[in-house]
Amino acid sequence: MIVRPHRHWFVRLFAWHGSVLPDISFRLFLNLLMSLLALWLLNWYETLGIRLTLAPFSLLGVSIAVFLGFRNSVCFARFSEARHFFGALLIACRTLQRQVLALFPDEAPRIQALLLAFCYSLKHQLRRSDPRPDLERLLGADAEWVLSRRSPTNMLHLQLSHWLAEQRRQGKISDLVWSNIDESLNQLAAVLGGCERLASMPVPFAYGLLLHRTVYLFCTLLPFALAPDLHAMTPLVSMFISYTFLSLDTLAEELEMPFGYQNNHLPMDAICANIEISLREMAGEEETLPTPLRPDVHYRLT
Amino acid sequence: MIVRPHRHWFVRLFAWHGSVLPDISFRLFLNLLMSLLALWLLNWYETLGIRLTLAPFSLLGVSIAVFLGFRNSVCFARFSEARHFFGALLIACRTLQRQVLALFPDEAPRIQALLLAFCYSLKHQLRRSDPRPDLERLLGADAEWVLSRRSPTNMLHLQLSHWLAEQRRQGKISDLVWSNIDESLNQLAAVLGGCERLASMPVPFAYGLLLHRTVYLFCTLLPFALAPDLHAMTPLVSMFISYTFLSLDTLAEELEMPFGYQNNHLPMDAICANIEISLREMAGEEETLPTPLRPDVHYRLT
Amino acid sequence: MIVRPHRHWFVRLFAWHGSVLPDISFRLFLNLLMSLLALWLLNWYETLGIRLTLAPFSLLGVSIAVFLGFRNSVCFARFSEARHFFGALLIACRTLQRQVLALFPDEAPRIQALLLAFCYSLKHQLRRSDPRPDLERLLGADAEWVLSRRSPTNMLHLQLSHWLAEQRRQGKISDLVWSNIDESLNQLAAVLGGCERLASMPVPFAYGLLLHRTVYLFCTLLPFALAPDLHAMTPLVSMFISYTFLSLDTLAEELEMPFGYQNNHLPMDAICANIEISLREMAGEEETLPTPLRPDVHYRLT
Amino acid sequence: MIVRPHRHWFVRLFAWHGSVLPDISFRLFLNLLMSLLALWLLNWYETLGIRLTLAPFSLLGVSIAVFLGFRNSVCFARFSEARHFFGALLIACRTLQRQVLALFPDEAPRIQALLLAFCYSLKHQLRRSDPRPDLERLLGADAEWVLSRRSPTNMLHLQLSHWLAEQRRQGKISDLVWSNIDESLNQLAAVLGGCERLASMPVPFAYGLLLHRTVYLFCTLLPFALAPDLHAMTPLVSMFISYTFLSLDTLAEELEMPFGYQNNHLPMDAICANIEISLREMAGEEETLPTPLRPDVHYRLT
Amino acid sequence: MIVRPHRHWFVRLFAWHGSVLPDISFRLFLNLLMSLLALWLLNWYETLGIRLTLAPFSLLGVSIAVFLGFRNSVCFARFSEARHFFGALLIACRTLQRQVLALFPDEAPRIQALLLAFCYSLKHQLRRSDPRPDLERLLGADAEWVLSRRSPTNMLHLQLSHWLAEQRRQGKISDLVWSNIDESLNQLAAVLGGCERLASMPVPFAYGLLLHRTVYLFCTLLPFALAPDLHAMTPLVSMFISYTFLSLDTLAEELEMPFGYQNNHLPMDAICANIEISLREMAGEEETLPTPLRPDVHYRLT
Repeated sequence: MIVRPHRHWFVRLFAWHGSVLPDISFRLFLNLLMSLLALWLLNWYETLGIRLTLAPFSLLGVSIAVFLGFRNSVCFARFSEARHFFGALLIACRTLQRQVLALFPDEAPRIQALLLAFCYSLKHQLRRSDPRPDLERLLGADAEWVLSRRSPTNMLHLQLSHWLAEQRRQGKISDLVWSNIDESLNQLAAVLGGCERLASMPVPFAYGLLLHRTVYLFCTLLPFALAPDLHAMTPLVSMFISYTFLSLDTLAEELEMPFGYQNNHLPMDAICANIEISLREMAGEEETLPTPLRPDVHYRLT
Repeated sequence: MIVRPHRHWFVRLFAWHGSVLPDISFRLFLNLLMSLLALWLLNWYETLGIRLTLAPFSLLGVSIAVFLGFRNSVCFARFSEARHFFGALLIACRTLQRQVLALFPDEAPRIQALLLAFCYSLKHQLRRSDPRPDLERLLGADAEWVLSRRSPTNMLHLQLSHWLAEQRRQGKISDLVWSNIDESLNQLAAVLGGCERLASMPVPFAYGLLLHRTVYLFCTLLPFALAPDLHAMTPLVSMFISYTFLSLDTLAEELEMPFGYQNNHLPMDAICANIEISLREMAGEEETLPTPLRPDVHYRLT
Repeated sequence: MIVRPHRHWFVRLFAWHGSVLPDISFRLFLNLLMSLLALWLLNWYETLGIRLTLAPFSLLGVSIAVFLGFRNSVCFARFSEARHFFGALLIACRTLQRQVLALFPDEAPRIQALLLAFCYSLKHQLRRSDPRPDLERLLGADAEWVLSRRSPTNMLHLQLSHWLAEQRRQGKISDLVWSNIDESLNQLAAVLGGCERLASMPVPFAYGLLLHRTVYLFCTLLPFALAPDLHAMTPLVSMFISYTFLSLDTLAEELEMPFGYQNNHLPMDAICANIEISLREMAGEEETLPTPLRPDVHYRLT
Repeated sequence: MIVRPHRHWFVRLFAWHGSVLPDISFRLFLNLLMSLLALWLLNWYETLGIRLTLAPFSLLGVSIAVFLGFRNSVCFARFSEARHFFGALLIACRTLQRQVLALFPDEAPRIQALLLAFCYSLKHQLRRSDPRPDLERLLGADAEWVLSRRSPTNMLHLQLSHWLAEQRRQGKISDLVWSNIDESLNQLAAVLGGCERLASMPVPFAYGLLLHRTVYLFCTLLPFALAPDLHAMTPLVSMFISYTFLSLDTLAEELEMPFGYQNNHLPMDAICANIEISLREMAGEEETLPTPLRPDVHYRLT
Repeated sequence: MIVRPHRHWFVRLFAWHGSVLPDISFRLFLNLLMSLLALWLLNWYETLGIRLTLAPFSLLGVSIAVFLGFRNSVCFARFSEARHFFGALLIACRTLQRQVLALFPDEAPRIQALLLAFCYSLKHQLRRSDPRPDLERLLGADAEWVLSRRSPTNMLHLQLSHWLAEQRRQGKISDLVWSNIDESLNQLAAVLGGCERLASMPVPFAYGLLLHRTVYLFCTLLPFALAPDLHAMTPLVSMFISYTFLSLDTLAEELEMPFGYQNNHLPMDAICANIEISLREMAGEEETLPTPLRPDVHYRLT
């Protein structure tokens, strides 16, 4: 199980790493400049009959909040679905390991290697990183053929399926046991297909675009609407409101594609290490268990 | 896996293709005219005792935002369900290919052709386009009979089922294996039935209608409510608010029926090509793999 | 597949049939009268110290919008679940037809008749209409016994089950095949039980009541709150807001019980015809295929 | 199927039974007193510099509406899940009855009695009422042993399981048929476990508490915020807003624990009677069918 | 079934234990101080041209309410999922107990001990408490080996799997019965994997952080925005609004990680005791049934 340290609430209040502050600090700074500009020009443009009052921004702000809430729940659902897939991956790997240990103790090491290779290869496919080191470590010479295919993860799955069909052909297992283990292989296939779906199909582009634009324009015009009422407090309130809206917009975008290396993405390295530990422990390889990954000093876990 | 390029946030901010701007530009222009009219007539109709203040529009705007949020989540759920069906289609095709390769290596090419024909035929049925070229490419002379039926996709499914029953009758597979593969065929049937349900049953007509009307009337009256307060800024704020509401209304309508050729519709061409690549690679037809479809210069993927 | 024509957006904007306007026109007219009354009495009751301002109505209106949003999503979920059940009915019927055609070609016509009778009987049970014509058309003389039972749909299901058990007793199918087809029968039972649940258990009565009362009272008092600010524009704005709230309330009520004949109810006639076409086509009865139902000139489909 | 009469909308508007009015009438009366107090003391406490304006109450009211909306959807989900369990109970009982009638016609009466006893015992367990009369009616002398156990419902389930295992041991059914019927027994177990989960685990106490307190305090202070603006209309508007908020709070609480005797609780008596009718009809006991329960003159169904 | 006493609504209104008041009392006190400060400094900072009006806070407050609503539903979904897992644990344990009692009466005591050890070990793993006392009580000498492993819960599951495979190897059960019971073991594995997922993967850190910060800053600035309007009533209204927002934020955080000892966490002690009672009762160990845990005098149940 992946263990995360707990941060004190006061420390958290000023957290920089792990928050979205680094991503939006530039835009908050722009907002500050815009507020100062609004204050500086206030008297001049009021004489021109150009007025912005808060009432329409209130209507617009609440509407944007409703839409941001919707976009956040959609993007969070994607993140959550991705997390479910990796949870299901752990469960399916354990089940297959359990079934293989019980029914084919001799073959267990090879199947375990294929299962782990499947997990690592899936991780690299989703991150578009190089699977070579992990696959060579796990599969040795067999890795070469897999790496030469277009979709190594699916090919590893196919190898598991071929191995299982071979056992059935040789009469080592009945049709029923074949069907049972095949069902577990289907779980792996569902995880693979589901992750590919998430990775290849973002939330419709126009949603994100619409909210980006609206949030940016809203934050840009806001100081001009606040200035007539708040005078010197304009920068504070404007940055506060902008912080809330920009953060949520940025966070939604991060969660939309959860398979990267960012702070709020899925810690797939840790999850794969966790699966490896679990399978090796089940096989009794106590002495060679890797250490679980832990968050670094900035509470980051990749 | 379908790969999508990433656009820089600044480029995105001014994106025209892929956004809903082309669809609503005419209505935004009308809104601009209405704003200018409101400003021009302001003094005249205020003397008539005709006044519109922002307060009731604020109440109405927030209410419409809540209802638009509801409609968007309903329409997005349809889009998302459609995407799930096509994800399940890939998984089911792979599973069937896997089972057929393991159990009936000789029959694999024919079944692969039927599976791919099923996918392409489903695509054409949902888009109401002509399945002939794809079916003839895949099935050769057998395509004629299928094309002469009312529902070719279901007939292709029936052919798969008949082939499977034939294998069982000839004693090539036990009842249990039959039952297992039949289960995979049921997955295909569920995808077909589900897509037909989505395509034939929109969100109740009155929902879309109600929000269309309300949004249009709201955007038309809004300038008159803004003008007394904002004077020269009326067109800017009115178009901003209208942009937000009209965009969401338009986007919801696009997502409601996700099986077309519009920007935010399902890229079924790319998905079908992807399934074809996946099945052919599993069958070892490395040399004849088609190239995956990629978004065009406007980031469009059909 | 049921095909629906597309209406131009401009035509739709003034649609009368299919919208909820016919249902609420009387109440909108009452609202108009109330607005005129509010305007007429304005000076008199302001002198009495009776004042209604928009601020509390704004708070109340937004709250009602949130609750209406909740009620709409609940009622829409019921509609959507009902639609899912009828989608699952089509899929289950096709699966059974497929299995019966493959395994018992001789019995297929009789089973097809029972399956279709099940669908039509379900439709009539949910609409509380008379199943006699449909059952006599499909079952001939056997219809009499079924019609004499309290719950004909469930009895038809039981007949399917008895027929299947008979095949197993006679050794025509193994226990496994029996179990597979029994599973498909369970799908039918789940559809039947689910539809009965929807039909016999509305959303808790107090929800609808609460929102009815609140919406009515809100719309009745609204003109008095608008009149001091808007004067001559009161009827327009009041009717606009009332239209939005009354429509959503009415629509939610229609969707709550989706098994009727109203515009936004499930088109069960078309769905049953569709199932019949699909099953007959699978059985090769090309020449006797009924024509699919299409929406009438008012875009209505029952 | 349980049939409910339809009430005319005008009658419904003044419905007392079935609404939550009886539960909140006392609190609405208190609110009236508070409004009169606010009006009476208005001049006095305004001179003391004590002012309450509507603006912060507007912010608070909308926030409470959002949270009430959340709480309502959570509590409604519990009600809805409970209803699903009882729907699944009907389906599972019918399936078991169907399987037993087909495979063990001789044993059917005994199993039917056990199934019905399971349903009634579940009802009594959830309502903490006395299962003795129902169990004695159904099981005769065997009821005594069951009633002496701590959890009679689970014991009845265990008896069904023991009976099934006995059939398998005697070779009357193959392992496969055993497995199929065991699957149906698992459905019953899932209903039992799910209902126990709902009954033993309310929504976290602090949620209800938080909203109770907030709603009560809000309604108590509201008249003082309304009085300066609305004068004589304060009681009307204050009671209207309080009615909306208190009703939703009360309704959510009722739905949270849907296994009681209140108006909006599950009509478990009617559902159990319905299951009994359905099973007896399937067994051909036409002459002894009980009459379905119908709502009483106050539209109440227990 | 776990039984909870009912508290009178008036008593509940002033409940201290079980509410989140103890957690936020310090922050509410700070808010009181801030209100008094705002009142005291009001005249001074108004002369400096520093003004805060309620309008932007209204916009911000409603937006925060929308986001808090989203965060609450996400965190509640985690709590609810955890509760579902423990419900599924009870159901799976009962099913396994039922199957073992029917098929291997001799082995039942050993399997029952392993099942209970699995439940208690899962509880201790999630709470990071010491499983030794419970495992030694249940397993005796066998506990030592399990306790020496890194993940005892998974090892207990593996033992159950090994035992089952042994029965199959010895020919005591057919492949089919093996497959059936293996399916029940998979349910246990799914509960284990799901709970590990919940425990190791919180809601993205940035969500909680963002709302914490926004709520704190909002509550800190609120008194300054209320003071110009409300004067002496500022502390009351400011604390009321802060109470609502801080409570919901705190509650969401508690529910996010439901496996602890706090008031609104899962009562895993009571649930495990309940499972033990249920299994022992099924095995007929009537005389040694433990007593169910009940809430203490503060209505707390761990």
